[in-house]
Amino acid sequence: MPDTLPISFEDVLAAARRLDGIANRTPILTSRTFDAMVGAGTRVYFKAENLQRVGAFKFRGAYNHLASLPHDARERGVVAASSGNHAQGVALAAQLLGIPATILMPGDAPALKIAATRGYGANVEFFDRLAETPEAAVNAAREASGAYLVPSFDDPLIMAGQGTAALELIQDAGELDLVLTPLGGGGLLSGTATAVRALSPGARILGVEPEGADDWVRSLAAGERVMIDPPTTIADGVRTRRPGVLTYAVVSRLADGVVTVTDDEIREAMRFMVLRMKTLVEPTGAIPAAALLSGAAGTVDGLRVGVIVSGGNVDPGVLCGILDP
Amino acid sequence: MPDTLPISFEDVLAAARRLDGIANRTPILTSRTFDAMVGAGTRVYFKAENLQRVGAFKFRGAYNHLASLPHDARERGVVAASSGNHAQGVALAAQLLGIPATILMPGDAPALKIAATRGYGANVEFFDRLAETPEAAVNAAREASGAYLVPSFDDPLIMAGQGTAALELIQDAGELDLVLTPLGGGGLLSGTATAVRALSPGARILGVEPEGADDWVRSLAAGERVMIDPPTTIADGVRTRRPGVLTYAVVSRLADGVVTVTDDEIREAMRFMVLRMKTLVEPTGAIPAAALLSGAAGTVDGLRVGVIVSGGNVDPGVLCGILDP
Repeated sequence: MPDTLPISFEDVLAAARRLDGIANRTPILTSRTFDAMVGAGTRVYFKAENLQRVGAFKFRGAYNHLASLPHDARERGVVAASSGNHAQGVALAAQLLGIPATILMPGDAPALKIAATRGYGANVEFFDRLAETPEAAVNAAREASGAYLVPSFDDPLIMAGQGTAALELIQDAGELDLVLTPLGGGGLLSGTATAVRALSPGARILGVEPEGADDWVRSLAAGERVMIDPPTTIADGVRTRRPGVLTYAVVSRLADGVVTVTDDEIREAMRFMVLRMKTLVEPTGAIPAAALLSGAAGTVDGLRVGVIVSGGNVDPGVLCGILDP
Repeated sequence: MPDTLPISFEDVLAAARRLDGIANRTPILTSRTFDAMVGAGTRVYFKAENLQRVGAFKFRGAYNHLASLPHDARERGVVAASSGNHAQGVALAAQLLGIPATILMPGDAPALKIAATRGYGANVEFFDRLAETPEAAVNAAREASGAYLVPSFDDPLIMAGQGTAALELIQDAGELDLVLTPLGGGGLLSGTATAVRALSPGARILGVEPEGADDWVRSLAAGERVMIDPPTTIADGVRTRRPGVLTYAVVSRLADGVVTVTDDEIREAMRFMVLRMKTLVEPTGAIPAAALLSGAAGTVDGLRVGVIVSGGNVDPGVLCGILDP
């Protein structure tokens, strides 16, 4: 591993300047009841990226990346493959920057997500996810159009953009003792760890992933990036099978560890956040809260804890299957 | 009607001092998408009282009232009859002030609400709502215990307390052209109108009630308080049959009018607020948004609009019947 990491705190600050006035400066939510449930004298600061534009932190990295593209790449347009928050983040960022965007979605993607992505002005095309991998579909689209592929996490500009949420969290809440993020590809945790190490150097930094998508736990234990079987978890935002190359370099150096939660723990945390805290989160957005409620994050008595709430885009059927089973 | 109104702006300011550091200073939510849906150049500022303690603005009035009680009334304890947000507001305010509280609820009240009220330390007793009116149940309890009855809306301290939400809204968002609140007993609209007339004198102030609970529209048309048949509306927070005496005096003088929305319009607004704005509101909390989306509030092009989002306490079954019918 090289001595220098793929991103520095300066990259996060540069992303913050690009996003200033463009991304929402999302509020910090707190709950006296949640605090009392997880520890004695604990204060938890929830950075509500479910209130970010497109309903998820993914807008930050996508905009930071697209705003940095050279002129000719902008002219050719961009393409991304995603049925999730990356699709909407790229679509809106491209619209704001006047860049033509094509989003490839599986043919069975939820109608609401297709409509939202089209609502941001993107050209939506479909692929058959049983007959073709997303990568093959993207490559075909790129060959046909010459469009630039927007990476979803393993990229310095994406990682730095995602780090701006933690930057704002510490600017607004002050120094923290522990910071938790959900962990999928690792873009969010990489950016978060970079910002937190600079602004709150004493904080512990933990990634949290579902038991059924534990590629990071296995990779860190093995000391190298491990590929797992297709993940089984309700948290559709973190169903990655292997850490990224760049994100692994950052997380393995700057984070203090990765812990896991079960899907039932995620559901319970989601019920609390929606019904008691009155804020709509998707399953992935409830993962760090699940680690605090279940004890997976360890004892937090007296600690000031920061949590990145990653997003709030959840299908009503999935939501109601959890709230009113 | 007397020349002087039951409350003045000074009463709202006094309530704000009592609530300082006790009530949440709730955030203001905005949505570019909602703004674009309701008008050209419209900006809507949602005062998120669903994030207030107990999940509703009702805590403000209850605490303002209980904090003003003389010593002997505090010693005897308080009683309130409610299956809704007033119950929880009184229970928490009493707990914080060290006042014994008994809440009378109908025997068929939702288990979640009973548990929440008990969670705030109140003694919950039940009455049979088919055999006994809430008033009769309260009178029996007062006779038995000598406890003080906390009014739910038709009271100067309650009205002034509710007005602190609009006070904060204008302090944080600036002057407004139009302010909307849901309208049941009229406590919220009375306090709101009192604050808005003082701080943003040019603003139009409208109450919004469900078509199936239109006691205010009928009363204002008749020029006197009219009793309607038992209301039929999904919005359980505003099922009053007749305006209050004091609230009618304030609303008829300070508000510019009352408009109605249908239950389907409430459902549609609720879906938008929960699924797109990611904030959990109860049906009553979505009533002003429904008036903007339906056009009942009139043309709002170019206006700065303030909305009091009254609360977010909704049974998961009711919620999911609306989100995922």
